[in-house]
Amino acid sequence: MKSLTEYMWFNTKKDKEFVNITDDVQKVVTKSKIKEGLVLVSAMHITAGVFVNDEEDGIKSDLMEWAEKLAPFRRDYKHHNTGESNADAHLKSVLFHHQVVLPVTDGRLDLGPWQQVFYAEFDGQRRKKLIIKIIGE
Amino acid sequence: MKSLTEYMWFNTKKDKEFVNITDDVQKVVTKSKIKEGLVLVSAMHITAGVFVNDEEDGIKSDLMEWAEKLAPFRRDYKHHNTGESNADAHLKSVLFHHQVVLPVTDGRLDLGPWQQVFYAEFDGQRRKKLIIKIIGE
Amino acid sequence: MKSLTEYMWFNTKKDKEFVNITDDVQKVVTKSKIKEGLVLVSAMHITAGVFVNDEEDGIKSDLMEWAEKLAPFRRDYKHHNTGESNADAHLKSVLFHHQVVLPVTDGRLDLGPWQQVFYAEFDGQRRKKLIIKIIGE
Repeated sequence: MKSLTEYMWFNTKKDKEFVNITDDVQKVVTKSKIKEGLVLVSAMHITAGVFVNDEEDGIKSDLMEWAEKLAPFRRDYKHHNTGESNADAHLKSVLFHHQVVLPVTDGRLDLGPWQQVFYAEFDGQRRKKLIIKIIGE
Repeated sequence: MKSLTEYMWFNTKKDKEFVNITDDVQKVVTKSKIKEGLVLVSAMHITAGVFVNDEEDGIKSDLMEWAEKLAPFRRDYKHHNTGESNADAHLKSVLFHHQVVLPVTDGRLDLGPWQQVFYAEFDGQRRKKLIIKIIGE
Repeated sequence: MKSLTEYMWFNTKKDKEFVNITDDVQKVVTKSKIKEGLVLVSAMHITAGVFVNDEEDGIKSDLMEWAEKLAPFRRDYKHHNTGESNADAHLKSVLFHHQVVLPVTDGRLDLGPWQQVFYAEFDGQRRKKLIIKIIGE
């Protein structure tokens, strides 16, 4: 069994932003020389997510609006008694899930035609980290 | 390390439908001859999901109603400016998550007594694909 | 490739409760002697979840309130025609997702500074089971 672990850093311009990282993940897969395996792509923060969907501006905007509707910013979260103001980002992280596992077949991400991998920043404008870990052979 | 990759195709009669695929996944596990490992079951479309829950008609109906309540069909999603009308299916895919990873122990899916694996179609009546990939030994 | 499978049992005092299991998962990783791999942490019941977030009382309370808001207890779920009364716990299990996959690097859970692993009980006060399965080398 082979494995490779790489980290990516983000510092988004906007507070909330989706970043398409499909090519970055494929680069790690290629570098690993693993032909058959699984690659975990996982946010290392509790106010971010990782998900698979469509590289289309409309749906990305719809998804962000939907996140705000289901896990809205509010002043009165109990978490804010600590001095924080980002409880909504924690909820959004759970809603979107903080990770995906992607199949690797014949050295390539084995995705459907419209599947793209996104890092979902819900509390940005600061340095945040993500792990890409592949195992296989 | 051994691996096996299989694809399943769906063309559901209804636009939205849950399909129990537990036996199909077990067949891939058996065919792989892997005794200890992990199996990824992942939709290859951005308008479908995969989840684990109960084979009981009432809860399946409740789950579909809940999906519609939290990610409703609406005409005014921005995604629909592309000519599409299925933005709600994208949101439902994120809500349910598009994949699960199942443990394989002694050659069997290591599930709890009521755990069943479902393909969740949110934009059906067309050909859709799913990947089942197992790695282990 | 090496693997190790362990099971944890819960019998929470409260009907709904988050239990921090980060140390328990690390113990399985250490016991496995695996240095590089992936560990699946997965509820074996359809009324429980597993998620990664913050060990902070405020946000844990916010998360439980949010679960109740998005997947509320109601008498009139169809699942309750079976005599059950826990349909909301099924919905909450899907909302939080029933599992996570954690990276293991150099024999340690490779988590961000605030990432903690929680078992999410949504229908407690009874014996429930969780699987921790690690594969790697």
